[in-house]
Amino acid sequence: MRHLIDPLDFTLEETTKVLDLADRIAENPEVYSHVADGKKIATLFYEPSTRTRLSFESAMLSLGGKALGFAGAEQSSATKGETVADTARVVSCYADIIAMRHPKEGAPLRASMYATVPVINAGDGGHNHPTQTLIDLMTIRQRKGHLDHLTVGFCGDLKFGRTVHSLVNSLVRHPGNEFYFISPEELKIPDYVVEETLKPNQSFYKEVTSLEETLPKLDVLYMTRVQKERFFNEEDYVRLKDTYILNQEKLNLAQPDMPVLHPLPRVDEIATDVDQDPRAAYFDQVQNGKYIRMALIMALLEVPDPLTGRTVL
Amino acid sequence: MRHLIDPLDFTLEETTKVLDLADRIAENPEVYSHVADGKKIATLFYEPSTRTRLSFESAMLSLGGKALGFAGAEQSSATKGETVADTARVVSCYADIIAMRHPKEGAPLRASMYATVPVINAGDGGHNHPTQTLIDLMTIRQRKGHLDHLTVGFCGDLKFGRTVHSLVNSLVRHPGNEFYFISPEELKIPDYVVEETLKPNQSFYKEVTSLEETLPKLDVLYMTRVQKERFFNEEDYVRLKDTYILNQEKLNLAQPDMPVLHPLPRVDEIATDVDQDPRAAYFDQVQNGKYIRMALIMALLEVPDPLTGRTVL
Amino acid sequence: MRHLIDPLDFTLEETTKVLDLADRIAENPEVYSHVADGKKIATLFYEPSTRTRLSFESAMLSLGGKALGFAGAEQSSATKGETVADTARVVSCYADIIAMRHPKEGAPLRASMYATVPVINAGDGGHNHPTQTLIDLMTIRQRKGHLDHLTVGFCGDLKFGRTVHSLVNSLVRHPGNEFYFISPEELKIPDYVVEETLKPNQSFYKEVTSLEETLPKLDVLYMTRVQKERFFNEEDYVRLKDTYILNQEKLNLAQPDMPVLHPLPRVDEIATDVDQDPRAAYFDQVQNGKYIRMALIMALLEVPDPLTGRTVL
Repeated sequence: MRHLIDPLDFTLEETTKVLDLADRIAENPEVYSHVADGKKIATLFYEPSTRTRLSFESAMLSLGGKALGFAGAEQSSATKGETVADTARVVSCYADIIAMRHPKEGAPLRASMYATVPVINAGDGGHNHPTQTLIDLMTIRQRKGHLDHLTVGFCGDLKFGRTVHSLVNSLVRHPGNEFYFISPEELKIPDYVVEETLKPNQSFYKEVTSLEETLPKLDVLYMTRVQKERFFNEEDYVRLKDTYILNQEKLNLAQPDMPVLHPLPRVDEIATDVDQDPRAAYFDQVQNGKYIRMALIMALLEVPDPLTGRTVL
Repeated sequence: MRHLIDPLDFTLEETTKVLDLADRIAENPEVYSHVADGKKIATLFYEPSTRTRLSFESAMLSLGGKALGFAGAEQSSATKGETVADTARVVSCYADIIAMRHPKEGAPLRASMYATVPVINAGDGGHNHPTQTLIDLMTIRQRKGHLDHLTVGFCGDLKFGRTVHSLVNSLVRHPGNEFYFISPEELKIPDYVVEETLKPNQSFYKEVTSLEETLPKLDVLYMTRVQKERFFNEEDYVRLKDTYILNQEKLNLAQPDMPVLHPLPRVDEIATDVDQDPRAAYFDQVQNGKYIRMALIMALLEVPDPLTGRTVL
Repeated sequence: MRHLIDPLDFTLEETTKVLDLADRIAENPEVYSHVADGKKIATLFYEPSTRTRLSFESAMLSLGGKALGFAGAEQSSATKGETVADTARVVSCYADIIAMRHPKEGAPLRASMYATVPVINAGDGGHNHPTQTLIDLMTIRQRKGHLDHLTVGFCGDLKFGRTVHSLVNSLVRHPGNEFYFISPEELKIPDYVVEETLKPNQSFYKEVTSLEETLPKLDVLYMTRVQKERFFNEEDYVRLKDTYILNQEKLNLAQPDMPVLHPLPRVDEIATDVDQDPRAAYFDQVQNGKYIRMALIMALLEVPDPLTGRTVL
């Protein structure tokens, strides 16, 4: 039995197979509409996340299955002191697969050690969010045709943005990718990403502060939220905020086929005038999120793909 | 693609067609039990409302479809600052139709401008609640056989009662209806209903304070909750409260076929001894609520009616 | 129409039939996977309980049906002052069966008086929790082969533990059962259980304080949580707590086939080293919980058992 806790739990080959299946689902959703008939997903969300929870539930429903679960810790047995290990064992009796979101790092890993059904990490604290990484990869591949030899810019809060760290971890597995990290000093990419990921892979990377100067060089731009509470003082926030907002004017500096990604929700770091630009790929990411989760549920439940007759992992 | 945001979004003819379909569903529910197989409704409830949310979900399930969603703002991405526009776009990737309840007037309208699937307003602040209006019309027509030439009394909180305003707006589209507005001075029908709806339609209406004196004149009685917090002081509330409570004794003054409607939940404005009276129509409204929402989902999803072979709008 | 409010609502013969059906479901779940197609359960949980709510929903989904409901009072119409009677009538229009959890004793009984569909009590305050009792019976019978002539030990909080009282009530209906009540003075079995259940049935029982001394005598051990807040002072809690914790060392004193039951969630009253012991039956209880609820839904909805062609009650 396989789980998905860390984006790197899948080998490069396995990841490619999941992305391929997600592409096939995107093209022929009706072929897959009954492959998980009678199966149940439990969405155990110890902190709210509409987008992610609904995406998992919609994915299972779109495969013919059903969903049950809870949407916040106050609805869970955690309030009665139950451990994640016990909850995992209990819910394994109710569902065929579990998607767990938890504010504490490592909780889904612990759940996977006790569950008797596959567990998907739907985000644990500032740590991992592997389905988001798969979505990002699918969307980049869809837009650019490949995942290697790309110049990728990451902009905004690169310190706390777990989706950034996970995506870098995955992109270094492909040859020739180069990275620009665009952020204020306060929010720059952590040392451990540099030391543990970029240097060992001999990846080219550069830390810069200007979005406008970097934009023309990029094949892909990955935006993130800059949260006010990350700054030491109001002044710094106000001074820096606009620098890391993407609007149509700045986007005019970019290549005509440079997709703009964002894990959403956004607040104001991408102006709404960008939404109509064909380079805006963040709503594609939402749609792809459903397909990735459908592919993942099929992979972990070992449901054969009707188009190939084979299971994916 | 059509939405339902305001009860008047549907022409009189369209409204009649939806009511007709709801009647057919009520008579032959099993005929419709698979017409929406594989379809999904998202119930986005930014404030709790068991009745309305469960009614929408039950409606979709009764058509063969599935439901997902959230039951309170604290479960939504709104807490992370996401706009209703973005949420609408995102949820359009997960569901085939959206039912939205929101404390802010206009939120469902805004959602409908960005969603790529039909949006139903399930209540926005003190503004609109169009499915309730359709339910009220269906129930009156069921009981009286027609929607014209009726003397309709509205009793209680006519100032803040959005279901009252919407029903008046719909009833003036039928000829010969007359209105009695029975309320304390503090809670009388707002001027804009008089100026914008009643006068332009040359509808007969009368504002009165006594329920008992008015009851014998009515073909239909529509009760509403009188909430303590609407009054300036406790004294006024205590003095007036009982006047606007319907009990069996007062009901004896009414015509033998005068249906009593109430949008529910009720607190004590209708005594429970009235529940057994055949004129009590408020639990019929609940049952009709499911049929109306089934009809509406079919109409907006353009599902053909198996009995006529045609879509309803 | 039948409801299940009190474990004793079912005669001994009816209870046995439900347990028999649950056993058949456990052996052939796929035979039952479509018997409730198109049916809907409403889970009305006025206080959170993941385990119980998800178990009911999973049970209905596993029979082919669907689920809707709410997971906490703040999501219900109770916040608007609606009575349980009105909610029961309303939800009867949306679902074919209701499972209700309520902090107030008697609320599910009251709901059953107004609902037009079967109501299952999913726990009302410190009062009843009849599905738990059926689960306990099923698990004991599974492990011991019979429900009579057993020496059953109950350990921990016997004062407030409603599942203990209910199980005693059921076990005295079988001949020859003997009871050991193992608890600190503060938490001993209430007088009314002794006076109303044990004495009238002339059941042998003994109140003791030592788990270790009693263990060798037992055929079955039923553990419960000892909650800190039940004690008058911290000192007593600390002094007594460990006495009523079961660990592998103490378990070595017990018979080799003595099942250990616990209604869960546990906090630390059963050490996790016990989990691997074959006598640990508490995760079996969870699995049985789903089967019992499947059997119960079939029984109350009068769905014929495909294996016997007959309804169960």
